Amino acid sequence: MQLGMIGLGRMGANIVRRIAEDGHTAIGYERHSPHIDALASELGDRFAGTTELPKFVAMLDAPRVVWVMIPAGATGAVIDELADLLEPGDIIIDGGNSRYHEDIKRAKALRPKGIHYIDIGTSGGVFGRTRGFCLMIGGEAEQVSYIEPLLKSIAPGVEAAPRTPGRTGEPSTSEQGYLHCGPAGAGHFVKMVHNGIEYGAMAAYSEGMNILHKADIGKHLDAEHSAEVTPLENPEYYQFDIDIPEVTEVWRRGSVVASWLLDLTAAALYADPNLDSFGGRVSDSGEGRWTLDAAIDEGVPAPILSAALFQRFSSRGESLYADKVLSAMRKAFGGHHELPSE
Amino acid sequence: MQLGMIGLGRMGANIVRRIAEDGHTAIGYERHSPHIDALASELGDRFAGTTELPKFVAMLDAPRVVWVMIPAGATGAVIDELADLLEPGDIIIDGGNSRYHEDIKRAKALRPKGIHYIDIGTSGGVFGRTRGFCLMIGGEAEQVSYIEPLLKSIAPGVEAAPRTPGRTGEPSTSEQGYLHCGPAGAGHFVKMVHNGIEYGAMAAYSEGMNILHKADIGKHLDAEHSAEVTPLENPEYYQFDIDIPEVTEVWRRGSVVASWLLDLTAAALYADPNLDSFGGRVSDSGEGRWTLDAAIDEGVPAPILSAALFQRFSSRGESLYADKVLSAMRKAFGGHHELPSE
Amino acid sequence: MQLGMIGLGRMGANIVRRIAEDGHTAIGYERHSPHIDALASELGDRFAGTTELPKFVAMLDAPRVVWVMIPAGATGAVIDELADLLEPGDIIIDGGNSRYHEDIKRAKALRPKGIHYIDIGTSGGVFGRTRGFCLMIGGEAEQVSYIEPLLKSIAPGVEAAPRTPGRTGEPSTSEQGYLHCGPAGAGHFVKMVHNGIEYGAMAAYSEGMNILHKADIGKHLDAEHSAEVTPLENPEYYQFDIDIPEVTEVWRRGSVVASWLLDLTAAALYADPNLDSFGGRVSDSGEGRWTLDAAIDEGVPAPILSAALFQRFSSRGESLYADKVLSAMRKAFGGHHELPSE
Amino acid sequence: MQLGMIGLGRMGANIVRRIAEDGHTAIGYERHSPHIDALASELGDRFAGTTELPKFVAMLDAPRVVWVMIPAGATGAVIDELADLLEPGDIIIDGGNSRYHEDIKRAKALRPKGIHYIDIGTSGGVFGRTRGFCLMIGGEAEQVSYIEPLLKSIAPGVEAAPRTPGRTGEPSTSEQGYLHCGPAGAGHFVKMVHNGIEYGAMAAYSEGMNILHKADIGKHLDAEHSAEVTPLENPEYYQFDIDIPEVTEVWRRGSVVASWLLDLTAAALYADPNLDSFGGRVSDSGEGRWTLDAAIDEGVPAPILSAALFQRFSSRGESLYADKVLSAMRKAFGGHHELPSE
Repeated sequence: MQLGMIGLGRMGANIVRRIAEDGHTAIGYERHSPHIDALASELGDRFAGTTELPKFVAMLDAPRVVWVMIPAGATGAVIDELADLLEPGDIIIDGGNSRYHEDIKRAKALRPKGIHYIDIGTSGGVFGRTRGFCLMIGGEAEQVSYIEPLLKSIAPGVEAAPRTPGRTGEPSTSEQGYLHCGPAGAGHFVKMVHNGIEYGAMAAYSEGMNILHKADIGKHLDAEHSAEVTPLENPEYYQFDIDIPEVTEVWRRGSVVASWLLDLTAAALYADPNLDSFGGRVSDSGEGRWTLDAAIDEGVPAPILSAALFQRFSSRGESLYADKVLSAMRKAFGGHHELPSE
Repeated sequence: MQLGMIGLGRMGANIVRRIAEDGHTAIGYERHSPHIDALASELGDRFAGTTELPKFVAMLDAPRVVWVMIPAGATGAVIDELADLLEPGDIIIDGGNSRYHEDIKRAKALRPKGIHYIDIGTSGGVFGRTRGFCLMIGGEAEQVSYIEPLLKSIAPGVEAAPRTPGRTGEPSTSEQGYLHCGPAGAGHFVKMVHNGIEYGAMAAYSEGMNILHKADIGKHLDAEHSAEVTPLENPEYYQFDIDIPEVTEVWRRGSVVASWLLDLTAAALYADPNLDSFGGRVSDSGEGRWTLDAAIDEGVPAPILSAALFQRFSSRGESLYADKVLSAMRKAFGGHHELPSE
Repeated sequence: MQLGMIGLGRMGANIVRRIAEDGHTAIGYERHSPHIDALASELGDRFAGTTELPKFVAMLDAPRVVWVMIPAGATGAVIDELADLLEPGDIIIDGGNSRYHEDIKRAKALRPKGIHYIDIGTSGGVFGRTRGFCLMIGGEAEQVSYIEPLLKSIAPGVEAAPRTPGRTGEPSTSEQGYLHCGPAGAGHFVKMVHNGIEYGAMAAYSEGMNILHKADIGKHLDAEHSAEVTPLENPEYYQFDIDIPEVTEVWRRGSVVASWLLDLTAAALYADPNLDSFGGRVSDSGEGRWTLDAAIDEGVPAPILSAALFQRFSSRGESLYADKVLSAMRKAFGGHHELPSE
Repeated sequence: MQLGMIGLGRMGANIVRRIAEDGHTAIGYERHSPHIDALASELGDRFAGTTELPKFVAMLDAPRVVWVMIPAGATGAVIDELADLLEPGDIIIDGGNSRYHEDIKRAKALRPKGIHYIDIGTSGGVFGRTRGFCLMIGGEAEQVSYIEPLLKSIAPGVEAAPRTPGRTGEPSTSEQGYLHCGPAGAGHFVKMVHNGIEYGAMAAYSEGMNILHKADIGKHLDAEHSAEVTPLENPEYYQFDIDIPEVTEVWRRGSVVASWLLDLTAAALYADPNLDSFGGRVSDSGEGRWTLDAAIDEGVPAPILSAALFQRFSSRGESLYADKVLSAMRKAFGGHHELPSE
């Protein structure tokens, strides 16, 4: 089967590589030729590319299947341009990190032209090339079914994890690592919630590790417990020097918190045991905020996600004004003076 | 009635002043004489003091009523020393910020000696001299009743607030600003929870004010929204320059969030509109932690208090290690590089 | 000065009463006549009303000042209808609980017609009639200035609270209880954040009171601490029977948490000490959600507000599915069986 | 090597099975004989047992290694009894879920008798028999080293997970699934934090799944959005019927949130897609509370863990009083009536 790929960055190129490996072919579009040339020399006759969008469309067999894999901010404009070149029956796939609201609007806008729209939330990051990508898909059933040969090649496949007890017979698509989640938007919606969970799980590990990190506080009462805070009642309970890189390693085997995130964390800590290469300013990329918006709209409590998101905001200094207000209040009612930074 | 006061700092001295004003007398004990001399010259024959504890005890009429008003860390030792000098029937009051666990232990330890123990949580801060102190009391009913004339003088009195609709007749002690809450420990327990609520209310104001503070974010997209975070979808909604000192002032009259804390906040912002005299490192003094401990023991959800307390911890940099872990994870699975501090 | 009032429900009627009391006059519009007739007989020649919108407009002197005080859901349609009847120079005020996004859109839409738009966040609830309404105002400076005589009558006035230390001379409008916060939308924005703070402060009190409520847990270990949870380590610390109505009363005088909300809470508990008339399903009315949306957009941590909002969601059973997932996980990895409801 | 095991429940028996499988032998103690007989018939000459503690001690070769694997509440008494029977040089292991405070006290108490104490936090639950147990160990280095042959058999072994990139040569003990974390108490401390992370990660999944669960709310506006809450602004964004069992399955392969907990969750949902066998009352077993206590003592923010723990409290109805307070306040200031339960 043939796939058109717009955007040959790391993600787009790796998807092309995975389908080429399974015997499919790809046509690529990029504004600049080096990525194209590199991929062409790597994949031989399974790949051809161009820097001109009309030519790209012309190189594709109808019904065309075009996967757009570019930054979310640029996706809308490219889809508009593309839609003018495509024909009824063609399929546009947005595999990037668009907000699902956009999918719902785009699918509606493309419908009168007879162009089908599929949104695919794609998880896997830098490891997707070898590990495969987990695909969460929204769109019309017929078109999702049509592109299934490609999805099978991009997804990890059933052997990527032990089979869930009770599941027998022909593996479901979910067991192969791709899932049609519902109409347009459903793919990015499920991916968005996936990332919301990711925020929470990451925060759970980081918080626990911080508690381990401070387990020696009973040894450093002068430095840590200045007049700023109440004295520690039981310093004898906080005399531990925990080797956190080793702890993350031991948890990888047999423990309840074993996970892929933990595998990565153990590797990161093995390489940089004190995390000296990081300053602690944590970015957020939209999905966490959008998931929280959805929780608010739905009236669903999301204390974990909100705490995780707010920690990131705070890590970038966004609590400062609120903190100053607290100090001003304490001075006002209790005459408490703020202690200087150490 | 006569009161013995151990500790003539701001709180102790102001309590002495309030009872002297009502015709009671006080004997004071302090390690150093200047505080004693100052108070003696201010209050005339209503006050006498000494720097020797045995002499202090001898100056008091039996049954002695001794109020200990010194830092929580020093209270235990002084009470032990005092207990050796007192006689059966005497009363020790701890009016400081002891953890209520201590009260329960002390009352039990003093019982065989026939010495009575009363704990009084005392709220009012630097304004207590004129505003009166709110008194939350734990101990035996008979002894609490015995010291009531003093409590009436120290508390704000019924006229300090409009009478609650429905309450008629002789005002209850709660309406006068003091309350016997239960046996030993109950006073500090209620005061502890009071402070827990205070943490939460303070945090509520500070958080809302931070949201007002950033209401101009739509004007500063370049500076604020770097590649670090998702682009703001609707910058037109964040074009406000809110005058926060004026907002806190307007809320003081007629709004649902009018409060004494807000009064103080409005005053602090009027004096220092940009809070330039604060750095944002917020201390915590024990009661918040103890209230949270109690919530955990009781199995009662305390999301507000915990968030308020953790914000204070974070304001002092205690999230840093956790934040570095998050950045390390993001780099590991997504190849995301941490942005440098601005 | 003359005011046109659309909507003569409790809020609208009370605003009319306050301005009439100060010598202003009002024209009222309501779909049904009883409210009109009642107000006319109460206020005499200071009030006239009609059930027809064109007639209402005709009864007003130009430039017309029309205050719309109806449920947020109905406001938009009425303003559209009204705008067709008004003339350049007239002023529409939305005094209800609209989301500030609507204000920004409406002001923009009315501008070509020369009609001015002012949004006023109005706090005070059922007590506004006597206590006065706290007014947070968005709009053009010239028009806000024009309606100031009305604002002065509606607001509580400077004597409603002791003057903030440091403020001298002619009281600012904020001291009188009304404030021009910025352009269209700024009034409802500030009111929205006000309500967000209100959510947080309410939750702080309710949480503290819950901790007091369970202070007797050490007496009921069999009932409370079944096999469901870990045994309480120190039951001797949880033997208190706290009289919560009395505690809220004593806090009203001299304590740091004294507030108008606490006054109301003390009154509610005096009337219904065990809160038997409530079931614990807590509604939310939009402002809390919108404030949280704003915090997310601004990248400002809002842990207090989110916790307060999520508690309300949970009180209505919205955690149930998540809770079932937790029980399913616990059974899966630990073989733990869920205990039945008591 | 020989191990004495006190307690032959699921965990104790499975540990015995794992060491027997590797050629070690075990002596078991239980109050009742059936468990002993069953294990003896299963393991042949690698196991013998008794219901008498002195006989148990006599059957062990010095220096004795006794693993206590019984409920935390009973552990202290058994260790006391055991200590009277052991000799200097013998080793007691507490492999249960004791709070690490107890370990520190016990090790100190046993030291004068020359008895060594090791605490082992043991993770693995019902799957430990085949998957191996993750072992977090506290105690003196010499004794931990002495029992290493047993630890190797109980732990999962290096092949249980892919090797962390960068690690080469002889696998560390952490790579084999056991780790000496520090002196007495360190093992249970690390296990406690492990469970704290587990609480947070579980809550992250459950919360995300709840957001998926309500993704159809736009279809049910009448039922869900009564007058109780603000109308949903964009119902078109909430029209999804997400198949949550399938989503958890697809996330198992290639996604960032793949984990052992997710594996179990997918299995639980496959067996009971609507979770009808659960009522949503979630227990907590101590470790979460203790981790939060440690965070408070250390002054480390723990917003994730506290939110996770408080959700469990709420699931058992522990917010009810606070919720009633909120409703009482809303009625007091706004005249809002609480809506009845559906």
